[in-house]
Amino acid sequence: MAKKDIPHQLTVAGLRMAYLSGDITPHEIIGGIIGRADRDKEMNIWITAPELAFIQPYLDRLSGLNPLDYPLWGIPFAIKDNIDLAGVPTTAGCAEYAYTPAQHAGVVERLIAAGAIPVGKSNLDQFATGLVGTRSPYGEAHNALRPELISGGSSSGSSVAVARGQAAFALGTDTAGSGRIPAALHGLIGWKPSLGSWPTTGVVPACASLDCVTVMAHTLEDALQIDKLASGFHEDDPWSRRLLQPEEKLPLRVAVPAEAPVFYGPFADSYRAAWEASLADLSEMGIPLVPVDTGLFSKAAAILYGGPWVAERWADLGGFIEANPGIAFPVTETVLRSGAAAEYNAASVFQAMHKLQAFKLEARKLLKEAVLVLPTAGGTWTREQVREDPIATNSQMGLYTNHCNLLDLCAVALPAGEAEEHLPFGISVFTPAEEEGRLRAFAKQYTKNEGGRG
Amino acid sequence: MAKKDIPHQLTVAGLRMAYLSGDITPHEIIGGIIGRADRDKEMNIWITAPELAFIQPYLDRLSGLNPLDYPLWGIPFAIKDNIDLAGVPTTAGCAEYAYTPAQHAGVVERLIAAGAIPVGKSNLDQFATGLVGTRSPYGEAHNALRPELISGGSSSGSSVAVARGQAAFALGTDTAGSGRIPAALHGLIGWKPSLGSWPTTGVVPACASLDCVTVMAHTLEDALQIDKLASGFHEDDPWSRRLLQPEEKLPLRVAVPAEAPVFYGPFADSYRAAWEASLADLSEMGIPLVPVDTGLFSKAAAILYGGPWVAERWADLGGFIEANPGIAFPVTETVLRSGAAAEYNAASVFQAMHKLQAFKLEARKLLKEAVLVLPTAGGTWTREQVREDPIATNSQMGLYTNHCNLLDLCAVALPAGEAEEHLPFGISVFTPAEEEGRLRAFAKQYTKNEGGRG
Repeated sequence: MAKKDIPHQLTVAGLRMAYLSGDITPHEIIGGIIGRADRDKEMNIWITAPELAFIQPYLDRLSGLNPLDYPLWGIPFAIKDNIDLAGVPTTAGCAEYAYTPAQHAGVVERLIAAGAIPVGKSNLDQFATGLVGTRSPYGEAHNALRPELISGGSSSGSSVAVARGQAAFALGTDTAGSGRIPAALHGLIGWKPSLGSWPTTGVVPACASLDCVTVMAHTLEDALQIDKLASGFHEDDPWSRRLLQPEEKLPLRVAVPAEAPVFYGPFADSYRAAWEASLADLSEMGIPLVPVDTGLFSKAAAILYGGPWVAERWADLGGFIEANPGIAFPVTETVLRSGAAAEYNAASVFQAMHKLQAFKLEARKLLKEAVLVLPTAGGTWTREQVREDPIATNSQMGLYTNHCNLLDLCAVALPAGEAEEHLPFGISVFTPAEEEGRLRAFAKQYTKNEGGRG
Repeated sequence: MAKKDIPHQLTVAGLRMAYLSGDITPHEIIGGIIGRADRDKEMNIWITAPELAFIQPYLDRLSGLNPLDYPLWGIPFAIKDNIDLAGVPTTAGCAEYAYTPAQHAGVVERLIAAGAIPVGKSNLDQFATGLVGTRSPYGEAHNALRPELISGGSSSGSSVAVARGQAAFALGTDTAGSGRIPAALHGLIGWKPSLGSWPTTGVVPACASLDCVTVMAHTLEDALQIDKLASGFHEDDPWSRRLLQPEEKLPLRVAVPAEAPVFYGPFADSYRAAWEASLADLSEMGIPLVPVDTGLFSKAAAILYGGPWVAERWADLGGFIEANPGIAFPVTETVLRSGAAAEYNAASVFQAMHKLQAFKLEARKLLKEAVLVLPTAGGTWTREQVREDPIATNSQMGLYTNHCNLLDLCAVALPAGEAEEHLPFGISVFTPAEEEGRLRAFAKQYTKNEGGRG
């Protein structure tokens, strides 16, 4: 395969134009990606790294397909290694757990059907449990911009792969922020669809009732294109929902926290300043900012990690952990085992569920014709800091993400300038599940304004 | 108030015609109902019996309303006493639990807004826990047709009120069959909407995630009219759902049990014969009958009463029961306390929930473009038999109803001739939640055929 320079940053729109104009071929792009993966080996991006052995058939297939009929013709994408790609092992970050699926995950199938090329299975916080990207026996994923920092997790490798030009987009999963945090720490778009909007067949469950597949990409346009292709009712997915598809319409209000958010970690001050700058940017959009009490979101989040919901992870993974003592990554095992705590009985789950249902109603009312904007993360950490205090540092990363799926919200993490050089800052925008049209409209408007300034 | 003969059987359509033609007035109807309630006192139909003290304001209000604008103008209805009517106590069948609500339940509000007149709060199996109608400190509700038999429950008084001409329709609730069983035992229509279709605000929770409000009426036309007025998204109901409204279209298949259903109790043989006759009737509708394995439905039902789901009742009522030892009806307390069993931990709830989600998918596939038809009940009992063996007799009443809400199905209980004289037989028709249009179309066709023969 001829070596050819490929763009530093891969996008769906850019690659499509290059392919159609004949500037470059998918074979050349894949060649470049394999080279980059090799170059970045010590960054621990991949569990199954890009190699022609399994990519070739997807490349060969392209010659029979008209690019004009296949919106992702030749577009390389990364797959978090808790999502099935037929014929390649799924490890969920645990070699002993690994299995080789015969079928693609529902989402992967839809994207490949649109012409996309899977290039590898990316590293993750084991069993998608974590927001840091360091909880993996396959190594700590390095931040693509400042390698001493965390990448964010649990979809760590997916974010680094996109940021390092090894994929045009990447699939993540998101139960409590795993698709949004690593996007934010790399200045990427992180689109988290409504629960049940994208199929979760062929995905290793974390909390099955709360799991979403997500996409990370450089541009909102690309992320929304993937959403369009990946979403929709799936006959074989027990969690699939028939969601209303309301029109794209800007919100009448932008809800922002009445009390200043908490910022943490070594860059707390520059994060705070970046948030304040974001608020100024938001107020220039011409939609009134309305300060709201965000206590509701914290209370909902507390149900996930401070209440009986931790048992949902244990429900699906407990059997494996019990049968394989000492096999799981130590922090991960500690977190998972907390779900087996006898203090949570069956009635306490239903009590929490009923409380949560009331919170969902409250959120729906609070966000009527509105969007909520929060920082995606309130800070970040060095990998060393996380190693020293793995539980507390991880918890803080979820301050502004944990509530989302519990409250049945959809969200998009958007880049919002830099806190410092090579230290992107990001905001997240939320609406109730059946209001994705409002989320899209707002995100488009916001990124258009940001782009204009940039 | 002048005494006047009122029709033995009250219907929405019949009363409307009588009102509009001037044959009778709502005042006269209410007078007749109060007389009948007094006559039937020993049948234990009411907890708050019809009396002008609280009905008068609703009657007075009618004079200012044009009947043509109010589809339920002057129509008397009964309210199960776990559903709030403002200013009248809600007991849920337990005097010590009683409270007097300031607001109507969501459903009651919608019906009163359409002109309906609430005539009383009807007896029920305490805390809506039971399918027999005998579990009440307010007395065992008598069957309206054969007083020695059970009325069915838990919406016992509601069914007897309609059957004895004391209401044109009645509200029940249905978690595991409570709206369908008493309808079947009185030859009434029992419409059980999809979860979240009718509001449940102002309803005492049994299993909050599974509770529906239902209607019992003499005719399908009346039941569907009430459904139309009562259904629809409710801003203040945490369980309200925005459901798709597909068109009314007959199913392509009628799924019936491949193995003959179990019949029980003193009338097992005549019930069996009535079921066989129903199958013959169904096959005359010109839609193919397809025998299916109904094991799925039994397995789902087992989750409700043989698994951790019993803890959902305990989650909401446990606090009251613990604080008031010996106050609840003895059988009811036994059943509720089983929900506190330590054997069910938090993880077991999530495991059951995930299993159930898979069953829902299976049901959706099995019932694609189809309806399922089962006997509503496989038999009935004398009240004495239930007194002698209260748990086992009650369990059998739920054989063909328990699965329904767990699997997110909607249902209608339809009269299907008689098993013996004054012993109505009934079938239930089921579709997935978002296929109510198919349920309506089929029920209309079936009752048209039945009516033609009758």
